[in-house]
Amino acid sequence: MGAVKSKRVPRAVREQQMLDAAVRTFARRGYRAASMDEIAEVAGVSKPLVYLYLNSKEELFSAVIRREAAALVTAVTAAVEPRAAADRQLWSGLRGFFAHTAEHPDGWAVLHQQARTHGEPFAREVAAMRAEIVSFVTDLIGVAAKEAGCAGELAEREVAGLAHALVGAAESLAEWANVRTDEGPSGEHVRPTAKDAAATMMNFAWAGLGRMTTGERWTPDGPTGPADPPGAYG
Amino acid sequence: MGAVKSKRVPRAVREQQMLDAAVRTFARRGYRAASMDEIAEVAGVSKPLVYLYLNSKEELFSAVIRREAAALVTAVTAAVEPRAAADRQLWSGLRGFFAHTAEHPDGWAVLHQQARTHGEPFAREVAAMRAEIVSFVTDLIGVAAKEAGCAGELAEREVAGLAHALVGAAESLAEWANVRTDEGPSGEHVRPTAKDAAATMMNFAWAGLGRMTTGERWTPDGPTGPADPPGAYG
Repeated sequence: MGAVKSKRVPRAVREQQMLDAAVRTFARRGYRAASMDEIAEVAGVSKPLVYLYLNSKEELFSAVIRREAAALVTAVTAAVEPRAAADRQLWSGLRGFFAHTAEHPDGWAVLHQQARTHGEPFAREVAAMRAEIVSFVTDLIGVAAKEAGCAGELAEREVAGLAHALVGAAESLAEWANVRTDEGPSGEHVRPTAKDAAATMMNFAWAGLGRMTTGERWTPDGPTGPADPPGAYG
Repeated sequence: MGAVKSKRVPRAVREQQMLDAAVRTFARRGYRAASMDEIAEVAGVSKPLVYLYLNSKEELFSAVIRREAAALVTAVTAAVEPRAAADRQLWSGLRGFFAHTAEHPDGWAVLHQQARTHGEPFAREVAAMRAEIVSFVTDLIGVAAKEAGCAGELAEREVAGLAHALVGAAESLAEWANVRTDEGPSGEHVRPTAKDAAATMMNFAWAGLGRMTTGERWTPDGPTGPADPPGAYG
């Protein structure tokens, strides 16, 4: 019985192998062009077994989105230092985000490029994950404003706008960091590390956010230019 | 002859009407679900005429992407004050970007959501437009660094990363600003104006960029928190 058992792979393990193969195939071929034949081949199982376990290409794609979205949200939230200052929380969350997307480029491609544009119910799944991350960042910016004693001044709508800007910036940076060398315009593309990407985001965003929370504003009429002394924009 | 002529719509005008109908239909239905029947109906012409002028759904989609991409790039570049300081150039370009995407939500949805994910040749068209905008922003950040006398310190790769972050932030903000009220989770969503969105971006990004170009850096080890005095991050 031991010999027979060692040949039988448990269903849960088989399913994960199929999902691994599906992530890879959807990311590289696109949802429409990906075939169940190829997914079965990459997983090393028969096509009927894929249908038996996952029912249809649609359900397989949904299962992939749910698994990859949960993994990304878990990676980000696990990376955050919970009782740290708001900027350190953001820094640690960003490092978790860039590390995860760099380690799982196919999962990220499915979430960022495939899941959003093939209609429902796929778009809804990834929109829910994105809303969760935007909400987390919104809270962090709110906390930062409160820590700086100006919660009332940063209007709620502006905080939400900033959170959307920050999440979009991180997504764009992750997409750029994940460009495969063979897809780039030249062979010179060097990927930034996850830490580099997170540092770029913090330098880009946090100093600006920090100024905003202390009441400073960039204005088109005030003295401008990056060489101006700090505080001259307000 | 005058009476007959007034009934005949010139081909160029008819084509624009078809493209208008196609932008609207592709944006609302998605590329795959959009039908040539509906596009012809929205344009108020017969389906054979659409095929006669634009050949196929694929060519119609390509023509739409080209027209909307050119319109967006033209709107942004026309808005920029060419000889102003780098931050004012960015500010005016952002205002042009947010004004155009707010006025043409269907065109923006086609470029941002549809064109990128239905394979070639569509993805290539919109990637070229995006590369043009990223390159413009990269130059602006380079100029700002030079104006601040620290061109050498901001490594080329970091400048490119910042430009990708900034473009992604603006895209995300434009997407959020364009969410239709009936699609939002509640009826409370109020769209920011183009000027509000551009100001949010400048406050978010420029103060941070300004600090970077003067050599300041956010570091995880330094004194943190947005209430710290300016300069304490370096």
